[in-house]
Amino acid sequence: MAKPKIKRVVLAYSGGLDTSIILKWLAETYGAEVVTFTADLGQGEELEPARAKAEMLGIKPAHIFIEDLREEFVRDFVFPMFRANAQYEGLYLLGTSIARPLIAKRLVEIARQVGADAIAHGSTGKGNDQVRFELSAYALEPDIKIIAPWREWDFASRTALIEYAEKHQIPVPKDKRGEAPFSTDANLLHTSSEGKVLEDPAEETPGYVYSRTIDPESAPDKATVIEIGFEKGDPVSINGEAMSPATLLAALNAYGRDNGIGRLDLVENRFVGMKSRGMYETPGGAILLVAHRAIESITLDRGAAHLKDELMPKYAELIYNGFWFAPERELLQGLIDKSQDLVTGRVRLKLYKGGAYVVGRDSPHSLYDQDLVTFEEGAVAYDHNDASGFIKLNALRLRTLAKRKKREAKG
Amino acid sequence: MAKPKIKRVVLAYSGGLDTSIILKWLAETYGAEVVTFTADLGQGEELEPARAKAEMLGIKPAHIFIEDLREEFVRDFVFPMFRANAQYEGLYLLGTSIARPLIAKRLVEIARQVGADAIAHGSTGKGNDQVRFELSAYALEPDIKIIAPWREWDFASRTALIEYAEKHQIPVPKDKRGEAPFSTDANLLHTSSEGKVLEDPAEETPGYVYSRTIDPESAPDKATVIEIGFEKGDPVSINGEAMSPATLLAALNAYGRDNGIGRLDLVENRFVGMKSRGMYETPGGAILLVAHRAIESITLDRGAAHLKDELMPKYAELIYNGFWFAPERELLQGLIDKSQDLVTGRVRLKLYKGGAYVVGRDSPHSLYDQDLVTFEEGAVAYDHNDASGFIKLNALRLRTLAKRKKREAKG
Amino acid sequence: MAKPKIKRVVLAYSGGLDTSIILKWLAETYGAEVVTFTADLGQGEELEPARAKAEMLGIKPAHIFIEDLREEFVRDFVFPMFRANAQYEGLYLLGTSIARPLIAKRLVEIARQVGADAIAHGSTGKGNDQVRFELSAYALEPDIKIIAPWREWDFASRTALIEYAEKHQIPVPKDKRGEAPFSTDANLLHTSSEGKVLEDPAEETPGYVYSRTIDPESAPDKATVIEIGFEKGDPVSINGEAMSPATLLAALNAYGRDNGIGRLDLVENRFVGMKSRGMYETPGGAILLVAHRAIESITLDRGAAHLKDELMPKYAELIYNGFWFAPERELLQGLIDKSQDLVTGRVRLKLYKGGAYVVGRDSPHSLYDQDLVTFEEGAVAYDHNDASGFIKLNALRLRTLAKRKKREAKG
Amino acid sequence: MAKPKIKRVVLAYSGGLDTSIILKWLAETYGAEVVTFTADLGQGEELEPARAKAEMLGIKPAHIFIEDLREEFVRDFVFPMFRANAQYEGLYLLGTSIARPLIAKRLVEIARQVGADAIAHGSTGKGNDQVRFELSAYALEPDIKIIAPWREWDFASRTALIEYAEKHQIPVPKDKRGEAPFSTDANLLHTSSEGKVLEDPAEETPGYVYSRTIDPESAPDKATVIEIGFEKGDPVSINGEAMSPATLLAALNAYGRDNGIGRLDLVENRFVGMKSRGMYETPGGAILLVAHRAIESITLDRGAAHLKDELMPKYAELIYNGFWFAPERELLQGLIDKSQDLVTGRVRLKLYKGGAYVVGRDSPHSLYDQDLVTFEEGAVAYDHNDASGFIKLNALRLRTLAKRKKREAKG
Repeated sequence: MAKPKIKRVVLAYSGGLDTSIILKWLAETYGAEVVTFTADLGQGEELEPARAKAEMLGIKPAHIFIEDLREEFVRDFVFPMFRANAQYEGLYLLGTSIARPLIAKRLVEIARQVGADAIAHGSTGKGNDQVRFELSAYALEPDIKIIAPWREWDFASRTALIEYAEKHQIPVPKDKRGEAPFSTDANLLHTSSEGKVLEDPAEETPGYVYSRTIDPESAPDKATVIEIGFEKGDPVSINGEAMSPATLLAALNAYGRDNGIGRLDLVENRFVGMKSRGMYETPGGAILLVAHRAIESITLDRGAAHLKDELMPKYAELIYNGFWFAPERELLQGLIDKSQDLVTGRVRLKLYKGGAYVVGRDSPHSLYDQDLVTFEEGAVAYDHNDASGFIKLNALRLRTLAKRKKREAKG
Repeated sequence: MAKPKIKRVVLAYSGGLDTSIILKWLAETYGAEVVTFTADLGQGEELEPARAKAEMLGIKPAHIFIEDLREEFVRDFVFPMFRANAQYEGLYLLGTSIARPLIAKRLVEIARQVGADAIAHGSTGKGNDQVRFELSAYALEPDIKIIAPWREWDFASRTALIEYAEKHQIPVPKDKRGEAPFSTDANLLHTSSEGKVLEDPAEETPGYVYSRTIDPESAPDKATVIEIGFEKGDPVSINGEAMSPATLLAALNAYGRDNGIGRLDLVENRFVGMKSRGMYETPGGAILLVAHRAIESITLDRGAAHLKDELMPKYAELIYNGFWFAPERELLQGLIDKSQDLVTGRVRLKLYKGGAYVVGRDSPHSLYDQDLVTFEEGAVAYDHNDASGFIKLNALRLRTLAKRKKREAKG
Repeated sequence: MAKPKIKRVVLAYSGGLDTSIILKWLAETYGAEVVTFTADLGQGEELEPARAKAEMLGIKPAHIFIEDLREEFVRDFVFPMFRANAQYEGLYLLGTSIARPLIAKRLVEIARQVGADAIAHGSTGKGNDQVRFELSAYALEPDIKIIAPWREWDFASRTALIEYAEKHQIPVPKDKRGEAPFSTDANLLHTSSEGKVLEDPAEETPGYVYSRTIDPESAPDKATVIEIGFEKGDPVSINGEAMSPATLLAALNAYGRDNGIGRLDLVENRFVGMKSRGMYETPGGAILLVAHRAIESITLDRGAAHLKDELMPKYAELIYNGFWFAPERELLQGLIDKSQDLVTGRVRLKLYKGGAYVVGRDSPHSLYDQDLVTFEEGAVAYDHNDASGFIKLNALRLRTLAKRKKREAKG
Repeated sequence: MAKPKIKRVVLAYSGGLDTSIILKWLAETYGAEVVTFTADLGQGEELEPARAKAEMLGIKPAHIFIEDLREEFVRDFVFPMFRANAQYEGLYLLGTSIARPLIAKRLVEIARQVGADAIAHGSTGKGNDQVRFELSAYALEPDIKIIAPWREWDFASRTALIEYAEKHQIPVPKDKRGEAPFSTDANLLHTSSEGKVLEDPAEETPGYVYSRTIDPESAPDKATVIEIGFEKGDPVSINGEAMSPATLLAALNAYGRDNGIGRLDLVENRFVGMKSRGMYETPGGAILLVAHRAIESITLDRGAAHLKDELMPKYAELIYNGFWFAPERELLQGLIDKSQDLVTGRVRLKLYKGGAYVVGRDSPHSLYDQDLVTFEEGAVAYDHNDASGFIKLNALRLRTLAKRKKREAKG
């Protein structure tokens, strides 16, 4: 099928080999002028080499977009998600999922700015990321053309790709010639690894796969205690020092890394239908989840807390599946955000060899009432006799059922 | 109000001071013949002293019931609950909650056997346990009379209680004269502690409160690897050795204890309406949860897995609130049990200083298909182009929304 | 038990016999100064007689509060609830439930204004209304004293009550001497009837119980067509004529009454634990529900619509159980309200002998796109081939399951 | 793209023009031997003409499958669904959705029987039915090849289709030459209509579209009363006469038709992403829903009933989307079926001009207890004072919240 003509396309460009090949392939296949977008989401790589490489590959300087999105990423995506205590399939902290909508949003915005009619990304046809990029982009710009080269091109093997690169004067680093033993995705929230050496879920993740955390067994023998300050559900300080969102998450990452916290070896269900096995390192996020639950535990009413718990699996699934910009995610977010109005206070944690343990929490808005729980009955309006009526009426329907059973057993 | 006359009452009797006082108080207040029931749920105490004490307090030998319920407890209560990955408020493994229905069931059965018209328990009027005991008992025997002395009697202080004990020749151990610094509940699944020294949630749990687990910092410096075998969602073996339910849980407890696993310091919302702070030690249960999720991850379809995740908070809340014998818990249990038909296989875990990490899982029924996820497209029926259509139709409603927004922005 | 001394109590006073007896009983029993509060919620009774009667019973004019709350009732309670399409147990439009929080709110506010330390209501000890009144009052004023005479006093029979009335010079209308054949509750949204002649659910509701609607069989033989205009989820006009909330609901009630719409004979589950049988007439509400669903059907995205449908049972249950002022109801309301931003447009309905049928709906914000559904493929971006990929990926996990089944059947 | 060679294909064949064209097109395009399958699901058409036509089009007699599936359809698909009170988007009784899995199942079974490697259906590429057919087929036979000619062929217009028919000696009825003003799908549960004259949701459905029900305005002026007997959640008799499932549903359809019951004009959200407008006639189903809710109302405990209500939207969505054979639908079905164990009894209904009204229900397993609800307190164990404690403890958290608010307002 003949490709439709594309005038200008904004490519999510990492500066690496694969997206460089995509850059050339887009120009060649679609006759398109390529605009590159490289974002710093805290993946821990220099971005300037991406600029140099894009220039070398013929991109006009005005068409090279390099942006530091770390603060926006943490403030508008990561923290809102943590307000929900979101964990996909009970465990995964959604580190990759949450980055995609932001990249898609910037791709679309840049496309508008430079008058591009298409965007392109380097995600493969078997993963969730293609879905997340594209659903986000379509939700923001319904008529955008989206190009996913991995779904379109005919390269039958890694070798064919390398040949194409060499033919087009794209430098090929030595270690990229063969198959990588695993692939990674990284941002300020996490690093994920999957593929090849991880493909057998019966086999332990090799030690060299980990890059963001020290092995718990190698972590310090002495625990570290930190205090995280929260305001309206978001962390705002560590040990009393106020920090911006990205700075704070980076600091938590450092604590997590040093203490071997946040490793997760998981077999998960992809939206596209198959199971996959991944390894996640979310050092700061793992700490944040524990702390956020703790501050909620004293500031959130049971009704609100249980409602949030019931809605969480759906909310997490929406983010995992790429529906960040869907009305149902936004409606749930509104509810979650509103619940956080008084989720303010401090949580003290002990970090030790892979674990994060709550050792104290307090809040000016605490709903915990020592007088109510103390065994001695005090001035407080708790009458033990109330419990009797409470139980009796809760039991009424169960007793009615039991009577039916008895009656029918006799009959 | 004059007490109604009770002929015979079955008391949940621990052999300790408090339930001994209750024993006498029941006899005196209601003129009732007291039948004692003491169960071994794995709380780690000798039961024969309870027999001796009951006899000493005047109970007829035929009216002293002492039973080892450990296997029934684990097989019919603990394991079914773990099939659901149940955690109340995201964290609590429900160790106390799950023991109450079984005790209530036996109280009712013994009441029928000995012709008693009432049962009695030693739970206070501020906690959840009274609710759990009584809802369970009413659900099984709708016209049973239930006596909760702590809600009825007039003892205004610990001193008054002690005086009553002494007046009735009940031996008072020295360490029971004053207020306990904290109270505990224990069974094969867990030990919980609450009260006094734990009442300020801003303060760290003192080290002496822990009784079931070694401090992670004191745990061995070398990790322990174990393999748990599952059949239909339940653990059946450790390191290839088949074990009965209670034996297996005890073995997991030993692993957990030695490696400092399963401590939880929590502020939770009681069913009776207030927040309370407790400390839980669930060494074997914490390991089991991780392992069960892992075996499910390769054997359960996404549809079934997500349905379970969505229902879990409600299921956990039902158990926490005491509705074990309610139809909705039983209906959910049926669904959960059915989902476990093929949840069979093995999980390998590394246990290390407070953490339990999955290092491998396999199953004869695995749904994980290496061919489907491998990056190279193989013989398998996964066509990259399918992803394009999948995304397009999932995006359709989002694009329609975006078009409305554009149209209206213009208007 | 001796009654605590009450200084001043605000009574929800209807002017009828029962609340007049309560008035005297409160004064006598608690030595309290009674303040009466009578609200017009559209129950269709004159309020001035209540004033005269209160005065006659010795209440100071400054302590007689009579208020027309119809607009507030409909605007701030009824309409917000209808935004959710709330139906308890699939059918009941919550007409009684939704009135209680407003009355409780005014009782509390008046108590503050007049310096009362208590409020009192005339609900019995077996129903839901006592719960709704009291939960609402406690949520607004945690230390308020609430008196529910029906739970407290000793009148053993209707006769004893009448005697008390006569002894205290309370006029007893002839038809109130004996047991009423049924009791009713009415407001602008509905009339409910229950008790005595309705107590056998096997027996048809006698015709004389209905008071708000014509029997469908007696309704006009010709259908009536009306058009309801909506803005942000609320009805704002009928047949093009803008109306205030209460005026509009009254107008819908007239349409409903004339066409025999909104009768419901129901056995429902009370919060206090038993089943009860009631008969409801909600003429305008029944029409409104149909119309609201219709305007949502073209303006709400599927994601938002299905989320609302999933949350509705819980939302309805919260209102039924009296948790209007609970955080979880408020959080859900926020979500629901937000979803209604573009639920604006017009719905045409045919009303005929008990039924309300949608015959047309349109909206400036319609998401219905004729081009997308037409069988002929048009300029629109719907590619039939997309469906193939969509199905394939949705089927992937089902095929993986089927392969497992086949494999194991062979094995 | 060259079509893969198909040896033998089983076609869902109605005998009409469109599936006859498909028959020829399959033979021509794929060189496939076509096997026809025509099912009687109660659509109200003779099936023998389909046989004659298939023979005329060259199908071998042994390859013409004509089956009466009405009993299986109602017993194994319709009734199980009604046990859940399933309504998609609050209103649609899923009449089309529920028929597809059965047809797909028989297509797959016949394919196995005749050694076919493919199945084919006549659903278009824009609707839900393609999804339902194909998901069901894949779930039963993971490697089946499915051909959906409407997604594949190149006919650009109705005219082109007719030309193809004439070229291949397929008789073209006069009324099929042009576009149909609307299309229909019918089975024993319902008739749906959509397309063309229904495409503007602002316009009333023309009278001639209705085929299964009398206009309520033309229905008898006198109400009809019927009694439906239920066993374990399924209807088993009418007016005391036991009937097979299909016979019973047909009888209910006749009652519904005569009284103008079960019309629904709806804009719904398709799984494939767009909104569509349809008109449904479900005469017997509409009656059955009312009756089933009524028998549940007296036999089902609140806990079970509310759990069912909460799960219903998801269950209905699964059926609508085609996931009948998915594990999550099967798990939910198990729960629903189990809940129906004692849903046995009788419901009396008044049918009148579009409405079905409950006028009585009774059951040997009724949980409705007249003694519990009667205003006079009887021998029954309901103590009004219990309500006080019940309310107090339910209010505790709300009061704690209110105290926080007060405290902070002051601060």
